[in-house]
Amino acid sequence: MADTPDPRVTRSREAILTAARELLVQEGPAAVTHQHVAARAGVGRATVYRHWPQPGTLLGDAMAGVRMPFFREPVPPMRPWLKQQLRSLADELDLPDVRAVTAALVQGVADAGRREQLAEAIGNRLGAALAKAQETGELRLAIDPRDAAALVIGPLFYRSMLELGPVSEAMIDRLVDTLGTWTGPAHTPV
Amino acid sequence: MADTPDPRVTRSREAILTAARELLVQEGPAAVTHQHVAARAGVGRATVYRHWPQPGTLLGDAMAGVRMPFFREPVPPMRPWLKQQLRSLADELDLPDVRAVTAALVQGVADAGRREQLAEAIGNRLGAALAKAQETGELRLAIDPRDAAALVIGPLFYRSMLELGPVSEAMIDRLVDTLGTWTGPAHTPV
Repeated sequence: MADTPDPRVTRSREAILTAARELLVQEGPAAVTHQHVAARAGVGRATVYRHWPQPGTLLGDAMAGVRMPFFREPVPPMRPWLKQQLRSLADELDLPDVRAVTAALVQGVADAGRREQLAEAIGNRLGAALAKAQETGELRLAIDPRDAAALVIGPLFYRSMLELGPVSEAMIDRLVDTLGTWTGPAHTPV
Repeated sequence: MADTPDPRVTRSREAILTAARELLVQEGPAAVTHQHVAARAGVGRATVYRHWPQPGTLLGDAMAGVRMPFFREPVPPMRPWLKQQLRSLADELDLPDVRAVTAALVQGVADAGRREQLAEAIGNRLGAALAKAQETGELRLAIDPRDAAALVIGPLFYRSMLELGPVSEAMIDRLVDTLGTWTGPAHTPV
């Protein structure tokens, strides 16, 4: 059953992924629906469903190719990576557009699945980063890993959604340090 | 100009405050509008405006009389007080109704003033509690006090709004400890 992929299938798949990524970046995760993606990619909705029968997996695949906080593979050392991700996330949440999309996502009862996916995607990525940091001895985790996303992203979220203000470097440092004890790269086992 | 208050004025003021508190408890802060309060109190909207020309001050006065987290005067020692407030807040945010009201408040562009008031009311109350804890030597604060609300309430908010789950005691402890170094009541200066 070693299929040679049909070039037309490959092309439509690529067109759909590109459309999904563009929608994600320009309008936020709530906009990545099969209907919107199909219209933007210039294919029928049935074609999108053939490639991605589950709506969530399309968003997941689109996220994997987009330069947004927490969506790319963690790169050690993890402390600077995490600080950079939190900085980008805080800066993005400070943009009125992103704030509006996030608020819509939080509110959307119809989009409950979408919100869960986003929370899960962020949580999994953060969890993988922390696991890697523990493996290399860079971090001695002091919290329940299931609380990590709430503890480090929750404050950025609150600042953006309720207090409507920017996030200082000192606050980012504090968030990273709340996870546990970090050792400098000098202490990483060689 | 030592006015003797007109008993009718006192009565309408009390009726309005009672209606505002009931609305706050039953439907959340977004429901405390002059229009809703007037209808519930059985007075004209102009009467509400006469007593509270600024919409925000009515919500503030209603909050002061309601048993909701962070709305009552802090009572030392502050560590157990704070833990209790965070526990209640987490439990309330876990109720679908409260979650819906909070989400609506976050989203509501029309309600921007209301959201700011709520964030400010919570932030001020928390700030007063932390100031008192420092005065008595109960707490050595390790963070910028302006970040306190985001750091301790943000995670509850994220858990409720994005992850839709309950908050463990361990997480509450972690939040309280992130503020700085607490000394037990035994260490409080006598």
